[in-house]
Formats: sequence, structure tokens, C-alpha cells
Amino acid sequence: MTKRKAPDIVVGRLPLYLRMLNQLVEEGRSTTNSQELGDRLGISAAQIRKDLSYFGGFGKYGSGYDVVYLRDQLRRILHLQQTWPVVLVGAGDLGHALANYHGFAANGFEIVGIFDNDPQKVGTLIGSHEVQDVARLEEVIGEGGVKIAILAVPAGAAQTVADRLVASGVRGILCYAPVTLKTSPEVKVQYIDPVARLQHMAYYVGAGAKP
Amino acid sequence: MTKRKAPDIVVGRLPLYLRMLNQLVEEGRSTTNSQELGDRLGISAAQIRKDLSYFGGFGKYGSGYDVVYLRDQLRRILHLQQTWPVVLVGAGDLGHALANYHGFAANGFEIVGIFDNDPQKVGTLIGSHEVQDVARLEEVIGEGGVKIAILAVPAGAAQTVADRLVASGVRGILCYAPVTLKTSPEVKVQYIDPVARLQHMAYYVGAGAKP
Repeated sequence: MTKRKAPDIVVGRLPLYLRMLNQLVEEGRSTTNSQELGDRLGISAAQIRKDLSYFGGFGKYGSGYDVVYLRDQLRRILHLQQTWPVVLVGAGDLGHALANYHGFAANGFEIVGIFDNDPQKVGTLIGSHEVQDVARLEEVIGEGGVKIAILAVPAGAAQTVADRLVASGVRGILCYAPVTLKTSPEVKVQYIDPVARLQHMAYYVGAGAKP
Repeated sequence: MTKRKAPDIVVGRLPLYLRMLNQLVEEGRSTTNSQELGDRLGISAAQIRKDLSYFGGFGKYGSGYDVVYLRDQLRRILHLQQTWPVVLVGAGDLGHALANYHGFAANGFEIVGIFDNDPQKVGTLIGSHEVQDVARLEEVIGEGGVKIAILAVPAGAAQTVADRLVASGVRGILCYAPVTLKTSPEVKVQYIDPVARLQHMAYYVGAGAKP
């Protein structure tokens, strides 16, 4: 059904569209249109139509989109019809917050193992998960066919752990460590770095309003 | 010194360059060049030169960049010569992790207040910070001249809190709630949404390797 290869920036917006469609379903709505989606998301209607056009035709001209149909198509496009098993490496403060976050399971991702190398943490419980020794990482990834990992370890440990994840079959890494990982091209890495985001904002805030 | 208006995507890369320059300073290096920065960051050398050209000339042709000088210039461009006071709203698991994260203070941002509306949390300590009643939010923002906030509240509360932040003078919001905030154009909002990032990855991982 894909017509042209969608740019990465377009793919990155699909989760926002999916989130909004989930919300519309919750609100009991049956149809929507690019104008409404755009208004709610702060994106132009034309941009939304163009983004979706990479993946096929989802609405009749003038009649908008069927909410459930478009949601289901976005889930299919993003490969979210199955639940993805995910390992979480790092059971510090951030690891705790991530392990306790209900948004993952509600949106297609189930944490199947939490790992740390600190003997003080191994064996402790986070929610219903027992923190496991990171020595067992490869075993759990292999047994579960895990392809996606969340990396919440200190910067100095991130590359070593990433290498082990990739060697075990992981192909997507959500990296919270403030580093740039070196991985092979078939591995997709996404970074979450709040400091970089704050600095990005400071560029604008500092220009308009010196504290 | 600014020559042309830098696109937002370019501004977003400056913190990565700054982080790498900080690392080079720590390594005791005095000079670098776009090729080395690019190799370390997984960005082309040409892209780095083009990005930096928006802000002036930072190196002599062929001799590369002075590490400390370029770092200091990036800090100036990003308005990081001062430390920014920041308020954190939400003292749940995520708020705890953020409050305990040393990366903020080390990189230009000092958390000056943590707020929650849960009486069970108000008065408790997170590190050296006492969680304050969110009723005091406007007072602390006003007294501290706070322009930047981190929003770590549930989705349902995010817009209301954001409105209060903006009304009190905040001009930059780092939003962890999975929502799209409605704010006036002079307010810069950055979102951190791990679910959206995982879904973005699943698009690629699912295409290459069905679990």
C-alpha cells in the first residue's frame, strides 16, 4: 500500500496522529478530518494530508476520515498490531519511573525484563518486575525474541550495553544516556535527552526574555 | 553575529555539538574539526559546517576549531552563560527521577522548586528539595523570575498547569505529558514522549524483523 518511501520526519509524526485518534475514539467520535486533527495537534491540515498520502488513501475527498479505520491503519503501518516485548536496562531512578509507566503497555510495548549490574538492586521488585542481573540480558532477549530495548544506564556504560543488545538481536534502542551510540545501520536508535531539549528552548527563551 | 535565521532543526543540533565539545574539553583536547565532530556524532562534516555557518565563523579554513572557543561560543548562542532557574511540576515517579538527575545543574539549569497537588507528597523531600503545594507555583515563579518549566504531571492536568505557568511568565515548557499543549506563539514547548519514540522505531524494526 505504500506509494513512496516516507521521510523519517513523517514517520515520526504518525505516533502523534495515532494518539489523537485514540483520544477521538475515547470521546466517542466516528469521523474527523485533517483540519480538526491539525487544529488539535498544532500542525497544518495540508501537512497531515500530505503525511498520510505516503501510506495510501484514508478518506473520501470532502468527507474526512473514519476514526476507527484510520486508527487501525496507523497501527498497522507502525507494526503495532502485535505487542512488542521490550527489555529495560538500568534500574536507577529513571529506570524505576519507566518501569512504573503504564503508557508503554497501553500502547503496544510490554516490558519483559529489567536489568541492572548493581547487586543491591538485583532481586528487588519494581512494580511486579524483579530486577535481574544484567548477566542474564542475552538469555532473556534470546528467549523472548526481543527486538526493542530501553537504555537507562549511565553514559559511561551505554555503548557497552548497546553492543550487547545488538549482538543479541535487538534492532531498536531508546537511549536515555546522553551519548551518541555507534551501531550498525540496521539498528534504529532514538534518543531522549532532556538537557538537550532545555538548551534548545533556552535559545529562544533567552532571545526573547533575558532572565 | 547571526547571519541568517537558523532553522529550528539546526538549533536543535547545537546542544549535541556542545555536549561533544564538553567531552573533548574533558579529554584535554585543544582543537577539533568538522570531520571528527561528525564521526563522533553520526552527522556529516558538511552538515556541521553548514549548521555552524548560521552563527558566524568559528574556525580557520583547514585548521579546524579551537575546542574551548567553540564551546564558549555555543554556550553564548544558546544563552547558557547564565544558569536558568527551572520549576518542576509533578512529584511522581518521573518527577523524582528528574529531580534527582544531576545533568540539569551541570548543564545550565537549576531546579528551584518542585510542586505537586497531592497532600501526601507536599512537604516530602526529594534530594534536597521539599515538594511544595502547587498553589505556591505562581509565587515561586514570580519571585525567581523563572522562565522555564518541566511538566511531569498526568495528561489530564497538563493544559491547566501549562496555562498557569504561561500566565506567570514561563516562556519555555518541557512537557512529559502525552498531550499537545495549546499555548501562545511566544511560548516554546518541547515534548518528551517515549511511547511515540518507541512507535517510531517499531515502524522500522517491524519492517525488517517481525518478532
